[in-house]
Amino acid sequence: MNSSDLLFTPLGGLGEIGMNMMVLESASDALIIDCGVMFPDSRDYGVDLILPDFSYLEKIKHKIRALLLTHGHEDHIGAVPYLLRVIKPKIYGSSFTLALLRTKLEEDHRHLSVSLNETKPNQKIKLGVFSVEFLQVTHSIVDGMGLAIHTPQGTVIHTADFKIDSGSYRGKKITLQKFQEYGKRGVTLLLSDSTNVEHQGKSLSEEQIHQELEKICRKAPGRIIFSVFATNIRRMEQVLQIALKFKRRVVLLGRSIETNVPIAVDQGFIGAKEASALIDSQDIDEVHPEQLMVICTGSQAEEHSALWRMSQGEHKHIRISMGDWVILSSKFIPGNEKAISRLINNLYRRGAEVFYEKVANVHISGHAYAQELKQMIEAVKPRFFIPVHGEYRHLVRHGQLAQSLKIPPHHIFVCENGDRILFSNGKAQRLEPLEFQPLLIQSEGKGRLETEVLKERRQLSQTGVVCVIKSIDGLHIYSRGVLGEAENKSVTKRLKEHLLRFLKGTKLSDSDLQEELRLQTRRFFKEELGIKPVVFPILLVRS
Amino acid sequence: MNSSDLLFTPLGGLGEIGMNMMVLESASDALIIDCGVMFPDSRDYGVDLILPDFSYLEKIKHKIRALLLTHGHEDHIGAVPYLLRVIKPKIYGSSFTLALLRTKLEEDHRHLSVSLNETKPNQKIKLGVFSVEFLQVTHSIVDGMGLAIHTPQGTVIHTADFKIDSGSYRGKKITLQKFQEYGKRGVTLLLSDSTNVEHQGKSLSEEQIHQELEKICRKAPGRIIFSVFATNIRRMEQVLQIALKFKRRVVLLGRSIETNVPIAVDQGFIGAKEASALIDSQDIDEVHPEQLMVICTGSQAEEHSALWRMSQGEHKHIRISMGDWVILSSKFIPGNEKAISRLINNLYRRGAEVFYEKVANVHISGHAYAQELKQMIEAVKPRFFIPVHGEYRHLVRHGQLAQSLKIPPHHIFVCENGDRILFSNGKAQRLEPLEFQPLLIQSEGKGRLETEVLKERRQLSQTGVVCVIKSIDGLHIYSRGVLGEAENKSVTKRLKEHLLRFLKGTKLSDSDLQEELRLQTRRFFKEELGIKPVVFPILLVRS
Repeated sequence: MNSSDLLFTPLGGLGEIGMNMMVLESASDALIIDCGVMFPDSRDYGVDLILPDFSYLEKIKHKIRALLLTHGHEDHIGAVPYLLRVIKPKIYGSSFTLALLRTKLEEDHRHLSVSLNETKPNQKIKLGVFSVEFLQVTHSIVDGMGLAIHTPQGTVIHTADFKIDSGSYRGKKITLQKFQEYGKRGVTLLLSDSTNVEHQGKSLSEEQIHQELEKICRKAPGRIIFSVFATNIRRMEQVLQIALKFKRRVVLLGRSIETNVPIAVDQGFIGAKEASALIDSQDIDEVHPEQLMVICTGSQAEEHSALWRMSQGEHKHIRISMGDWVILSSKFIPGNEKAISRLINNLYRRGAEVFYEKVANVHISGHAYAQELKQMIEAVKPRFFIPVHGEYRHLVRHGQLAQSLKIPPHHIFVCENGDRILFSNGKAQRLEPLEFQPLLIQSEGKGRLETEVLKERRQLSQTGVVCVIKSIDGLHIYSRGVLGEAENKSVTKRLKEHLLRFLKGTKLSDSDLQEELRLQTRRFFKEELGIKPVVFPILLVRS
Repeated sequence: MNSSDLLFTPLGGLGEIGMNMMVLESASDALIIDCGVMFPDSRDYGVDLILPDFSYLEKIKHKIRALLLTHGHEDHIGAVPYLLRVIKPKIYGSSFTLALLRTKLEEDHRHLSVSLNETKPNQKIKLGVFSVEFLQVTHSIVDGMGLAIHTPQGTVIHTADFKIDSGSYRGKKITLQKFQEYGKRGVTLLLSDSTNVEHQGKSLSEEQIHQELEKICRKAPGRIIFSVFATNIRRMEQVLQIALKFKRRVVLLGRSIETNVPIAVDQGFIGAKEASALIDSQDIDEVHPEQLMVICTGSQAEEHSALWRMSQGEHKHIRISMGDWVILSSKFIPGNEKAISRLINNLYRRGAEVFYEKVANVHISGHAYAQELKQMIEAVKPRFFIPVHGEYRHLVRHGQLAQSLKIPPHHIFVCENGDRILFSNGKAQRLEPLEFQPLLIQSEGKGRLETEVLKERRQLSQTGVVCVIKSIDGLHIYSRGVLGEAENKSVTKRLKEHLLRFLKGTKLSDSDLQEELRLQTRRFFKEELGIKPVVFPILLVRS
């Protein structure tokens, strides 16, 4: 790289929605932007988390000047504790973002020495050859920031996760003004959030959601149980306002909400007046149902969350019954639909009425729709465009959108994790991509899961396992996940007879015999049940 | 039961979308309506199919006069081959429904003697005390039928799966006239399809979809690859019409489409003129891309389907490249979203442009929206109402809809599989529900999967399995789905040392020793990897 070159390398979030992370580097300095996790499908063979591949960062360790965090969602900060095991960059972020990160880091004493640097909107920070300004954006979490990064190749704008809300927030009108100012001065590269590019038009504003929520709460005959992401502070403030209006007391249930709301109150993102509606969960029984509102976790039907417990009749404070109105003020995240459906069905079975995105305007995404994405591109007027945060199809569509706004096709780069784009002398080109292998994590990072282990778990899950042991005192057969109690004895007996017959006639070497035991056992079950289980053939004596 | 009583028992489809089946019976006679399967999530531990519990039908075997099939979708006819192993009722259905059933039954020679009775719309059949009239309805398959059943307690109307298309089909205007006529004469009970009750307003008409498809096909620069359910004959006829208009030749790819289209042509559901656009897949290379259209299977991203192979670059006739436009004219069925997303992403990676439900009006459901459901209730004006075909929340919402149309709450029964409603002397009451356990089928019915086996597979899939054998020549350890190659040797060695140390000091009885080996092994892995694998502790010599 020449001293004035700029290299862009996405390490997460380009090719999936989740685990966002990217690197901007010059010859001498590098910035990491975000460090998030992705959650696997509910039954991904014991995988708890998926992280970006950090190996490239280890290589450029000496150049890294900072990790910039755009906001406090898990897919932007969740992998920080894992990154800190590898490198320990200075971390910059807004006050709410850092507060969430702090609660996360406090769980592990190794992280006490981490350098956390709070950054205000419009504050400029010098980091090696770069200087960075944080730009306030609207998103489904408070205190989210886009980035304007001055580089040797000119200004790079990163929208971060954003939407353009037509309304106002805490009395201030929301505008794109800062982005427009940069656009006027000239922007080399725009990195923009692609999550909702498939949605035409503009997203609803938070004020419209407020109205719908108020309409529902006005009619509610008994308790209102409001479920929401624990980071959606603005939505919770709205609901507290509605509670005040209808003279309801509010109880918070669920660990992450009980943690985050006090932080938000403390930092002024929830007003003191709104906070006055809150009561302690111990006092819940002293409030009449029609004067009670619960704000709780569990909108994704997460097992053991507050709402999930209620739907199972297992919550210690709330037993759902006729007259309870439940509001799921959140998206059905792909992969969770079936679990959420089950949760809603169970709430209905217990007598609740349920409101959710599909039947009422009780939620709107924090990500810009196509029309808003256009507005952003038009405001920034970049020379080059790289769509970020999305699956491949989202990135392609966002690229098409940019093209429709007259950005030439060879100035648009649809990239995936590990791709590298070099900006040099006002031109851009693709370099050879990095090898890239996301990390699969089980049990809070104690183990890195290898792909081969995952494959074996998949096989086990489909067919179960049979253990065949030939020892000095004969043949022993054990199985798990293959036979039900009713048939176990008789089928195992027949398999044993079959294998003994086969062993009598054979003169194979040990290794051939082992393989043949495996094949014979699999064939037996294929005939018997139509499946070929995983088999351990074990020879403890010579044949 | 008294001789004039009527008993309604749903055995499938009330509490889920899929495996539809219900029974109507008098003291002397019984009718089964539909006999469908449900498909599990893609990774449901080796489960291939889920079927209704047939045990109640075995009990009332002597009374069963017929199995009535409303249409040919798998969730209405897919379980017939399994039912025929238990009872062999006379089967009644429309010509296309029976044609699909026949191809299914031909796979198994045991079913050659089954009595299949073709029924025309408006034809009346006498079956014991019942008489049945088949009523033509619009759905996403041709030749679908609702039912009007005359019973000792008056008329029962079963809408079957339906929508009210504002357009016409094969020149005939679609109306609710027959349902209205019954409504005027008086209907005791309406059973109506709840699938889409969450959708407000009216569904788009097939003509609107036709227009959108035509618009896309007009602009397509190269091949058009059109993916659709193999039973959506009307949609395929529309696409053939569009192909004729733009002078494209059409190739069918995928086994079920290649089977069903000739049947539809033969029975007159696809016109001879439209069929003239078809060419043999062998001739595909003789047609220019801009004159070619492919109709293929795989809209649900089913592994090994035609479209899936294309997305993987593995199809023998089609290699996707720039200029190919792919249309997924189908729903993202819950549970399949992630697989469909991956398929679309892969098609984009190969250079295709892709159109799907989320970004274009290329599909509309075959199930009525709320407004259409209202129209049906208003047409039939039933005394009693039972919502069918839906998850619990759909049934509740459909019940609420009926209530809003002045059907009194105590005349509306939200039921689940196994519930029983008795109609007697113009009154209705719930009886004690049946025990109900759906059948889980692996490998085409060779094995019934017990719930306990499923549970074991779930455990195996989360943690893998370790086999610990204590034999005369020492300790042997084998594992699968626990350790990657890199760590296998060293971790296994440490476990062995740990267990040998433990064995030295112990004087436990065999059974206690076995249990303790299990616990020690699990504890070791909990420390080591944070997981507790399934363990087989095997003692081959006395301690």
